Amino acid sequence: MQSVDPQVVGVGKQFVEHYYGIFDSNRAGLTQIYQQQTTLTWEGKFLSGADAIVKHIVELPFQQTNRKINSIDCQQTYQPGIMITVTGTLIIDGEAKNQLKFVQVFNLASNNGSFLLINDFFRLVLD
Amino acid sequence: MQSVDPQVVGVGKQFVEHYYGIFDSNRAGLTQIYQQQTTLTWEGKFLSGADAIVKHIVELPFQQTNRKINSIDCQQTYQPGIMITVTGTLIIDGEAKNQLKFVQVFNLASNNGSFLLINDFFRLVLD
Repeated sequence: MQSVDPQVVGVGKQFVEHYYGIFDSNRAGLTQIYQQQTTLTWEGKFLSGADAIVKHIVELPFQQTNRKINSIDCQQTYQPGIMITVTGTLIIDGEAKNQLKFVQVFNLASNNGSFLLINDFFRLVLD
Repeated sequence: MQSVDPQVVGVGKQFVEHYYGIFDSNRAGLTQIYQQQTTLTWEGKFLSGADAIVKHIVELPFQQTNRKINSIDCQQTYQPGIMITVTGTLIIDGEAKNQLKFVQVFNLASNNGSFLLINDFFRLVLD
């Protein structure tokens, strides 16, 4: 039976928890995670570098977010590093009618025992 | 204004068209695309290597697939290579009621002027 290294899955899940913990409590704090070399495609809009990315996310037209995670898939990359694909439901400003399915993809590069976020993609999956 | 290198977008879109062209006409032909070193997470199931991957895809319990692509987002990676996130709707066995939202993520590594598929993730995004 083939399986992913449990350490890869552990790092991936920990990253996801950490990222959304910050996103859903204080988006400006994402400067902890985004790097100078990170690129983000947010709903088709391409942004490069922590400053542009965090500015964009902070200025999104809602105040409060909560979410339910449906799946977290992790794989090792050749970089070396870890890719993570997350699907879930985003709840905006506490309104039950604003339940939006989303997918987010993270590409982390291994860097001296820690991981840097290099690529990030976010898309709503609408009906 | 920040943007992705048009060549990266071109390669990404061409790959997606090529991949689904094969998937939706003759799944066994995906041996053209999957490599010994490819890993796929299909609906949470991890598979490694072209043989295991193509066998799994060929044996999926449906005959015919069509799809509508809603978005293709491409980014350059440090590997170097290209990451692609696709969202769309899959129609199974021509039944209008079997319209399933999906997301698929491809990580391609640049290799002497061509690209190898290294990581692949597929998830349905269900209501």
